[in-house]
Amino acid sequence: MPTHAPLPLILDCDPGIDDFVAILMILAAPERINLLGITVSGGNVPLHHTSQNALKACELAGRPDVKVYAGCPRPILRELVYEVEVYGETGLKGVDLPTPQMSLQSTHAVDFLIDTLMTTPKKITLATTGPLTNIAVAIVREPRILDNIEQIVTMGGSIELGNITPAAEFNFYADPEAAHVLYTSGKKITTIGLDTTHQLVTSLDWFDRLDALDNPVAHTLTLMLRAFYEYDMKHFGLTGGVLHDPSVIGYLLNPLLFKEKDVHVEIDTSFGIGRGRSIIDWWRKRGLPANAHVVNEVDVKGFFDLLTDLLASYGNKKQKAEGALT
Amino acid sequence: MPTHAPLPLILDCDPGIDDFVAILMILAAPERINLLGITVSGGNVPLHHTSQNALKACELAGRPDVKVYAGCPRPILRELVYEVEVYGETGLKGVDLPTPQMSLQSTHAVDFLIDTLMTTPKKITLATTGPLTNIAVAIVREPRILDNIEQIVTMGGSIELGNITPAAEFNFYADPEAAHVLYTSGKKITTIGLDTTHQLVTSLDWFDRLDALDNPVAHTLTLMLRAFYEYDMKHFGLTGGVLHDPSVIGYLLNPLLFKEKDVHVEIDTSFGIGRGRSIIDWWRKRGLPANAHVVNEVDVKGFFDLLTDLLASYGNKKQKAEGALT
Amino acid sequence: MPTHAPLPLILDCDPGIDDFVAILMILAAPERINLLGITVSGGNVPLHHTSQNALKACELAGRPDVKVYAGCPRPILRELVYEVEVYGETGLKGVDLPTPQMSLQSTHAVDFLIDTLMTTPKKITLATTGPLTNIAVAIVREPRILDNIEQIVTMGGSIELGNITPAAEFNFYADPEAAHVLYTSGKKITTIGLDTTHQLVTSLDWFDRLDALDNPVAHTLTLMLRAFYEYDMKHFGLTGGVLHDPSVIGYLLNPLLFKEKDVHVEIDTSFGIGRGRSIIDWWRKRGLPANAHVVNEVDVKGFFDLLTDLLASYGNKKQKAEGALT
Amino acid sequence: MPTHAPLPLILDCDPGIDDFVAILMILAAPERINLLGITVSGGNVPLHHTSQNALKACELAGRPDVKVYAGCPRPILRELVYEVEVYGETGLKGVDLPTPQMSLQSTHAVDFLIDTLMTTPKKITLATTGPLTNIAVAIVREPRILDNIEQIVTMGGSIELGNITPAAEFNFYADPEAAHVLYTSGKKITTIGLDTTHQLVTSLDWFDRLDALDNPVAHTLTLMLRAFYEYDMKHFGLTGGVLHDPSVIGYLLNPLLFKEKDVHVEIDTSFGIGRGRSIIDWWRKRGLPANAHVVNEVDVKGFFDLLTDLLASYGNKKQKAEGALT
Repeated sequence: MPTHAPLPLILDCDPGIDDFVAILMILAAPERINLLGITVSGGNVPLHHTSQNALKACELAGRPDVKVYAGCPRPILRELVYEVEVYGETGLKGVDLPTPQMSLQSTHAVDFLIDTLMTTPKKITLATTGPLTNIAVAIVREPRILDNIEQIVTMGGSIELGNITPAAEFNFYADPEAAHVLYTSGKKITTIGLDTTHQLVTSLDWFDRLDALDNPVAHTLTLMLRAFYEYDMKHFGLTGGVLHDPSVIGYLLNPLLFKEKDVHVEIDTSFGIGRGRSIIDWWRKRGLPANAHVVNEVDVKGFFDLLTDLLASYGNKKQKAEGALT
Repeated sequence: MPTHAPLPLILDCDPGIDDFVAILMILAAPERINLLGITVSGGNVPLHHTSQNALKACELAGRPDVKVYAGCPRPILRELVYEVEVYGETGLKGVDLPTPQMSLQSTHAVDFLIDTLMTTPKKITLATTGPLTNIAVAIVREPRILDNIEQIVTMGGSIELGNITPAAEFNFYADPEAAHVLYTSGKKITTIGLDTTHQLVTSLDWFDRLDALDNPVAHTLTLMLRAFYEYDMKHFGLTGGVLHDPSVIGYLLNPLLFKEKDVHVEIDTSFGIGRGRSIIDWWRKRGLPANAHVVNEVDVKGFFDLLTDLLASYGNKKQKAEGALT
Repeated sequence: MPTHAPLPLILDCDPGIDDFVAILMILAAPERINLLGITVSGGNVPLHHTSQNALKACELAGRPDVKVYAGCPRPILRELVYEVEVYGETGLKGVDLPTPQMSLQSTHAVDFLIDTLMTTPKKITLATTGPLTNIAVAIVREPRILDNIEQIVTMGGSIELGNITPAAEFNFYADPEAAHVLYTSGKKITTIGLDTTHQLVTSLDWFDRLDALDNPVAHTLTLMLRAFYEYDMKHFGLTGGVLHDPSVIGYLLNPLLFKEKDVHVEIDTSFGIGRGRSIIDWWRKRGLPANAHVVNEVDVKGFFDLLTDLLASYGNKKQKAEGALT
Repeated sequence: MPTHAPLPLILDCDPGIDDFVAILMILAAPERINLLGITVSGGNVPLHHTSQNALKACELAGRPDVKVYAGCPRPILRELVYEVEVYGETGLKGVDLPTPQMSLQSTHAVDFLIDTLMTTPKKITLATTGPLTNIAVAIVREPRILDNIEQIVTMGGSIELGNITPAAEFNFYADPEAAHVLYTSGKKITTIGLDTTHQLVTSLDWFDRLDALDNPVAHTLTLMLRAFYEYDMKHFGLTGGVLHDPSVIGYLLNPLLFKEKDVHVEIDTSFGIGRGRSIIDWWRKRGLPANAHVVNEVDVKGFFDLLTDLLASYGNKKQKAEGALT
C-alpha cells in the first residue's frame, strides 16, 4: 500500500520474547507503520526488565530514535503476577543482549498516551500486547482520549481454555479491572486470543528458515525463540512455541489473514476461579450489542511468510549498507 | 459381555428429548444394565413434565415395570431456568405421546437414592443427564451414600464455550451449587461436556436409517429428533441436532468409544457472568488432584452404530412377539 | 394464656451451651409449647456431639420422651466450621453430664420435618438456633412444607458487626446457602441477630440468682454459663456471656419483650470477605418487599425474669416429687 | 499550636454541601493548615458541578488564590452513581451562589497529586471527603508518592449499616476499587465512617447560633444546611442533618475530639449486595495487621464548638474589613 500514509500507532507492551518480536515487526515496516511511541507495563516480567527489553529491541533494529515510555509498575487492583518460568528472569530467555545505550523517556507512559491522544490531528491506532493497566488508567484519568483512538487491537483472552489459569489468559488475568475498563469503553476492541495465537506455533523448519536470513535480528530471534520453543509443547500440547504478540502486528499489516466475528465480551472481575476470563458470547446468547471484533482464525502460512519477509528486511538494510561502502 | 452381571444403575434425568433417547438406550440393553430406578428433576422443562416424560419413555419401550421417582422441583439456590425453546413446552417437541398408564412411585427421588444406596449389597453406578439437585441433596442429607456409589457419569459442563450462557452449560447452570457438591464429594466424576456432545450431531441420512428400523420406538424418535434437528444448527453452527444425554449411556456400554483425561474441575458458583461454568484444568496448571475423568472425544461413527443397534432391538422384540403368535 | 392450646413447635438446633438453655426453657413450659420434636445439625460442634447434647438436655429436664432427630452432618456447600473455642470440645464446656440413656430417633431430621409438616392438621412454628441446613434441605426437597409453617423464628445474622468474621454471624456463616434458601422462601423470617442477643448478657449477680433456684437444672446451667461467661467479655467487649439462642424461646413465649421492624434481608453468598453476612435493609433503601421481621431490641430485665421463672419451675417439680414421697 | 508550622494539606473532595463546609473550615484556619490545593472528583454530583462548587467555596471564603484541580470524571470500574436527591441538582441545595470568577487549574488533579508529592521537601497530609478515584489512580500510576504522604484521613465506610445501600457508605460505594487500592497501599488510613458522622447532626438551635455569627459564610451555610436538615431525619431516623465531611477537618485540627482503634479494614469489591462495604475487623477476628485507624466516637459538643469558632473567624475578617473602611 505505498500510496497510503503510514498508520500512526502506539504499542503498549510488556516484553517478553513475543513482544520483542512484535516490536521488530513494526520497525521492519516504517513505510506502513508510523510508530509514535512504545509504552511499557510490567507483565511477563517486572517493569524494570520489560522497559529495558523494549529499548533493546529498538537498538537491535538500529532504531535508537524510537521513544519508549515506562508506565504503571503495578496492576490496578490485584497483586502482581509474572511469567518468569515462560520468559526467563529478564524476559528474554536464550539471549544476553548488551545494556541499551538509549534511555527511557522521562515522561510517564500514561501521560504520553493522554498528551498524544488529546493533541493529535489524526486518530491513532493502539496495539496492545501486555496487561492493559496503562491504557485503562489513561482512560479513567481522561476519558476523552477515546475520541481520538482509531482502533484498539489487543492480544488477550480466550474463547476456550486459559493459559495462566484454566479460565484466564495471562494479559487479562494480570489486570482484569484494566481489561474491563477497555471492554466497557465504548470502543470495539479487536481481540486476538489464545484460540488464534495457539495456531501460530514455531517449528524447527522455520527456525532454519529464520536463521538463514543471516542478519543480526534474525540470528537473535532464532536463539530466543528456540529457547521459548519447548514451553508450550510441554504445557499445552502444542507442536512448537506460540507467537502470541506478533499476531497483533500481523493483523495491523494484513487483516485479511485473520477471520473475526463481532460479538460481546465481558471480563470476569470476580475473585473466584473465573477471575480474568474473557467471557466471549460467540453464539450471541445474551442479546447484547457487540463490543469486540473477536478473531478466531489465522492463515498460518500467510502469517509466517509475512513475518519472515519483515525480518528479512533487516538483511536488506545491511546489504544496502554494505553496498554503500563499496 | 454375556458373562458379566448387568451393571446396577440409577439414572437421574430431566427428559427432555435427549434424556428420552437415553432411557430408551438403557431399556434396550437389559442384559447389560440393571436399571434400579429413574429419578427425575426439573430442568429442560418443569418437573411435572419431565416426570411424565420419563414414564412415557418406559411405556414406549414396553417397560411399565420400571420405577420412576419424582425429585426436587427446584434447584438449591438459584431461580428456576428451563429450555422450553429447545425442547418445546412439554419437553418432547415433535410428538404427542399418550398420557401414561403407569404411575410415578410415591417415594421421593432423594429418599429412593438414599434408601437404595444405604442398603445395597453391591456398589451402584449413577448416570446423570440433568441438573444435579437430587443427588446433591441426597449427599448433603446422607453423605455416607458416597461409599456405595461405584461411579458417577455426568452429562454437563464444557471445556470451551457454554450453551445456556457464553460461560456455562445448561445442566450445571441450572443448579451450580448442586454441581459443586458433586465435584467436591471425593468421587471422581466422569464428565461428558459439550466438547464431546457437540460431536454427536444427527443428520438427515441417519434419520433415514433410524426410521428404516421400522419399529415404534424408532419411528417416535425419528419424529422427535427431526423436530430437534435445526436448533443447534441455528444457534451453534453445528451440522445437526446434538445428542447430549445419550452420550452417557454410550459411555456406560462402551467406554472405549471415548477419550478422557483425569483433571481437576471446579464449578463457578459466583454470581457474575461466569456462574455455572465448569472450570476444567485441562493443562493441570493448578496442581490440584484430579476430581474428574473429563471426556473430550468420541468415536462418532462407533457411537451412532451402537445407538442404532440398540434401537433396532425394539424391532427384534416385535418380530419375536409376532413369531410367538404364529 | 391458659385458655390457648399450646404452640406446636419444632426446634432445630446445634447445642451448644445456649441451645441447651433454649431446650430447657421449652421443656419448662409444656402448657404453652407443644414440642413435636428437636432436629439437630452440626454447628457449634460436630453433629455427633450436638445430637448427644440435645438428648442430655431432655434427660436433665426429666423428659426422656422428647423425640430428637439427627440431621445433616454437613452444610450444603461450604467446608465445615465449628466454634470449639467458644463452646468447648463437646459443646457443653464446664459440665460433664452422664451419657444419655435415651436414644436418637432413627428417622433423619429432614424426613421428620417433611413428614410432620406434610401431614399436620395445624400449622407448626419452627424455632431455629443453629445453621439452617436441615430446614433448607427440607424446603428444596419438598417446597410444599412451607404451606404448613406458621412462622419461623431464627437466631442469626446481624445489623452491625459479625462474630465469626467481621461481616458474618456464626449460624448464617456456617451455611450461607441454607440461610439464603430461607430468606427467599416466601416466608417472613423473624430474625433475632447479634444486635439483640448482645443485649442479653449474663452477670455474676444473675448466676447467684440462678444457682439459688436450687434445682439440678439451675445448678447445671450455672456451671455451664459460668464457663461461658468470659468469652464474650474478652472477644467482644461485653459485660458477660451472651444468651444467643434463648432469645428465640423468649420471643415465642413473650414477643412483647422484643421490638422489631419489617424489612428486607439478603444473605451474602459471595465467596469474599462478606460471605455469610445478613444484609439487612433497615432503612429500606432498596425498595424491596420485606421478607423478615428483624428484632433489634429486647427488654433485658423482662427476659431474664422470664428465663429465671422458667428455670425455677424445675424446682417446683422436684418439690412436688418430694411432696409425693411423704 | 501557634509555634508549629501549619500542616501541609491536599484536600480531595466532591462538594456537595458537607464538603463545602469542610473547605470553609480549612480556609478559616490558615495559621494551622497550609492548603496546597484542592483536588476534585465527581461523586455527590457530577464533576462539572463538584469542581465549580469547590471554586465557589473558595470565593465565599475570600480566597480566590486557592488552587483547585479537576480530576477523574468517572470511577475506575463501576458505573457512575450520584446523590442528587440528597444534595440537589448542583450539589448545593438551598443556595444559588454566583458563577465563580476564579478558574480551575489547567493541570489534572492526578498530575497535581503526583507532581506535588514527588517533589515535596516535607511529607504531606491527604484529607479525602469523596470517592477515592483521584488518589487511587495516582497511586497506580506512581506508587512512590506513598513515601511522601504523612497521613491519609478519609471520610468513608461504616462499622454498622451503610447509607447508599444497606451494606455500603456512599464514598466507598462510588468507587470500591479505588478504596481498595488505598486500604492495600501500606499506609494506615484514618477512617471516619458513618458510625461517627451520624453523631454529628445539626439542630435548629445550632442553626440559630450559626446564623447569629452574622457573616456571609455563616449565612450561606445556614441556608444550605437547613435545606439539608431533613433528609437524614427522614431516611435514617436521625435528629438532624449529618456533617459527614467536616469530621475530617475536625480530626485534623483536634484529634483529641475523636476516639479510634487500630484494626484491619477490607473493602468488599464483589458484585453482589455487599459491594463497596468496608469490612471493619473491629474485634480483630482475622489476625491481620491493622491497616487503619478507625474512628468510632466523637465529642459532639467539642466538634460543634470548634466548627462554630472556625466559622466565626469569617466575621472577624469582615469586621476588620469594615474597620479598614472607617
